[in-house]
Amino acid sequence: MKRLGKRTIIFDSPPCVIGNAAVVGKTEGEGPLCKEFDFIHEDDMLGEKSFEKAESALQKDAVMRALQRAGKLPDDIDLILAGDLLNQNSASNFALRELGIPLLGLFGACSTMALTLGLASILVEAGAGSLAVATTSSHFCSAERQFRMPLEYGGQRPQSAQRTVTGAGASVVAPHNREFPAIHAVTFGKIVDLGIKDANNMGAAMAPAAAETIAAYFTDTNSNADSFDYIITGDLGYVGSELLNELLIKDYNLDISSKHTDCGKMIFDKEKQDTHAGGSGCGCSASVLNSYFINRLKTGEIKNILFIATGALMSPTTSLQGESIPSIAHLVNIRKPDSVN
Amino acid sequence: MKRLGKRTIIFDSPPCVIGNAAVVGKTEGEGPLCKEFDFIHEDDMLGEKSFEKAESALQKDAVMRALQRAGKLPDDIDLILAGDLLNQNSASNFALRELGIPLLGLFGACSTMALTLGLASILVEAGAGSLAVATTSSHFCSAERQFRMPLEYGGQRPQSAQRTVTGAGASVVAPHNREFPAIHAVTFGKIVDLGIKDANNMGAAMAPAAAETIAAYFTDTNSNADSFDYIITGDLGYVGSELLNELLIKDYNLDISSKHTDCGKMIFDKEKQDTHAGGSGCGCSASVLNSYFINRLKTGEIKNILFIATGALMSPTTSLQGESIPSIAHLVNIRKPDSVN
Repeated sequence: MKRLGKRTIIFDSPPCVIGNAAVVGKTEGEGPLCKEFDFIHEDDMLGEKSFEKAESALQKDAVMRALQRAGKLPDDIDLILAGDLLNQNSASNFALRELGIPLLGLFGACSTMALTLGLASILVEAGAGSLAVATTSSHFCSAERQFRMPLEYGGQRPQSAQRTVTGAGASVVAPHNREFPAIHAVTFGKIVDLGIKDANNMGAAMAPAAAETIAAYFTDTNSNADSFDYIITGDLGYVGSELLNELLIKDYNLDISSKHTDCGKMIFDKEKQDTHAGGSGCGCSASVLNSYFINRLKTGEIKNILFIATGALMSPTTSLQGESIPSIAHLVNIRKPDSVN
Repeated sequence: MKRLGKRTIIFDSPPCVIGNAAVVGKTEGEGPLCKEFDFIHEDDMLGEKSFEKAESALQKDAVMRALQRAGKLPDDIDLILAGDLLNQNSASNFALRELGIPLLGLFGACSTMALTLGLASILVEAGAGSLAVATTSSHFCSAERQFRMPLEYGGQRPQSAQRTVTGAGASVVAPHNREFPAIHAVTFGKIVDLGIKDANNMGAAMAPAAAETIAAYFTDTNSNADSFDYIITGDLGYVGSELLNELLIKDYNLDISSKHTDCGKMIFDKEKQDTHAGGSGCGCSASVLNSYFINRLKTGEIKNILFIATGALMSPTTSLQGESIPSIAHLVNIRKPDSVN
């Protein structure tokens, strides 16, 4: 690999995704992407006794399905890169504890899917492992009670708030193979914090971080939106997406609006589902990337995407202490297999 | 780099630590390593208004001092790898938000220093960045109130409990240079969970993970304890250290006792300081490695060490739900500079 410009890592021999899977909960399964997912868990508890255990079961399910689609067993995998929103990454730690795969725990809030996938690609190309899994999850119920209110309280959320997706995604990353979608570049994000303090408006807090990373990638690679079928942000939702496009035009003179979409906007039906500003949570971009996008890259229906997952790095404690919301966005460039047109 | 055996990554051109720093709080500064640290903060609050903000200030201080010792500025650094014990890695996120360095957030509980240092070394050798910083922190007061009890409650802890270290460490990692201590190998840990549920006895929970990783490294590299000056575990403390040595003999037929030491045992004075089973927290092994050990490797006084940081991956929620403690241990092999004898 080599570095291009200040921050972008370009692969000489782009690693590929040989297996991908996305599993979601009931509400997500009633949304517009219902036909895309590998499995819809009608029981959000997955038969478990707590929301947290349910999230672990969801992440493990995504990993096992991705492995199956790659024709691999846990023993074949050299490294697993995983993270989630729960305190101490516990959804991942409990999901993966029986698999016996060396674990790199990562935390990037909702940016985690791009962080795990980008890093897994670097590790595979570098030879640190020949097969790596990148995964992340979120669960509406475990997130709601950890970050906001007990579910039973029935608190009303403002229209700018997003709904945490119950979902998980996993990608199995292998060395370059022309039959599979390939990771061509990675740009890791810097923390951007413009002083927004409203934890019910995370899209607005994260939009400047997404703009900064996208602009850095375009500068580093001397490219623009024309090269891509889609420029997909992780989960800015409706409020953040609008802001992102405004910021890119105003601050960077970049117009990506004809190519931009957002996983938080795609996963729920704005009119029929009462989900306010759209979906959020690491499982949102993880499940949309590992179904809709990677599946269409495989067939060549989509040829070239930028996937930018965005994370709001506050904790309930820092918010209560009056702190603003530091945000980050990591970018991965994924392209169709060389073997398809 | 190449993989040796099942899990160990060996560097062709071992990256090196060109700057290191360790800063600690008052109690740590009264312990046996008082002369080793770069700075002892007599005020555990570091002039901040909350324990959490104090921890962020502590981590930032370690990073800035390590950069200074390397003769570098934040702008020179391509990647920073950071993690801590606080929910949502917030000590790191707030410590680093003004530095403008692309951030990879990691979570490995008290294993984080080996995780960040090992991964930083891989990224530098792979060319993903030419300079990377690995850092982590913990703070007695922020950890105590997050994981156990409000400090004001004055709860009594059993003798098997360890005391979270107020401390932070940072290493600046650069491509191979024969003048500096070098990272020769990394072995990432698997989760090991033998069913221990007592969060006041984390040494016992983590010892099996340390034994598993150490044994994997010796098998992969066909080596044994004789090759090393020290085999240093992160923070098993007194209880866990004894168990580790027993387990290695019983389960793996390996005797490391003549070379073994533990950062949790080194940092406090067992007789004079009322710290029960020793120190813990990511800042424990981070501050001991980045002072005592790396400084002695630099001069050649110590030639070859294995550093195995251990993490207990539970959360207060999983413990309350009756779960056991999944544990992990990551290993890094560090050697003296080629230029010194």
